[in-house]
Amino acid sequence: MRDANYPWFILVPDRDNISEIYQLAPQDQQQLLQESSYLAKSLVQAFAADKINIAALGNMVPQLHVHHIVRYHRDPAWPAPVWGKLPAKPYSEEQIIEVVHRLKTEFTDEVAYLI
Amino acid sequence: MRDANYPWFILVPDRDNISEIYQLAPQDQQQLLQESSYLAKSLVQAFAADKINIAALGNMVPQLHVHHIVRYHRDPAWPAPVWGKLPAKPYSEEQIIEVVHRLKTEFTDEVAYLI
Repeated sequence: MRDANYPWFILVPDRDNISEIYQLAPQDQQQLLQESSYLAKSLVQAFAADKINIAALGNMVPQLHVHHIVRYHRDPAWPAPVWGKLPAKPYSEEQIIEVVHRLKTEFTDEVAYLI
Repeated sequence: MRDANYPWFILVPDRDNISEIYQLAPQDQQQLLQESSYLAKSLVQAFAADKINIAALGNMVPQLHVHHIVRYHRDPAWPAPVWGKLPAKPYSEEQIIEVVHRLKTEFTDEVAYLI
């Protein structure tokens, strides 16, 4: 997400007209789970996270997407959930490069980065 | 959850010392996914939900637990996430009986109800 307050990543299953996880075919649900856990574990390592917050909300954007947010005891919203707490903080170009670098160092699988 | 603002249910995997989904054994992750999807689908039917919000946060209670919240376009926090929006509203005894009745009508599997 374009919010430098927290390292925040979104998985979007490439399936049309799906708004809830249970609407995915069983094998797609499993793939989402595997990718979510792979991402969460990688984020803990790449960003030395204290906690990962995972959420499928989609009240405003109905296409199924799953938030993965790196949380720290020192982050500005801790221990509350991040939504509605702070306005999004822009990233500098250098910060984005640093975030992508951290991910690439951690991810061994081929991953497409959409920023 | 003891909050009558939204039908709100929590799945707690019966495993010790787990705070993140990825820390569960792979078969336990699959069971959680299956139970989560079963619960979400049942909630849509039982409560005529407009949306289900699913989240594993755990910033304050570290034991892994997964929120499943029935959302309506007309609910008092829509379209925002529910956290930090409204103080919890107590249920009456009659309302709790009604919620459990709706669940029991929908759930065909054996389910333990902890209220």
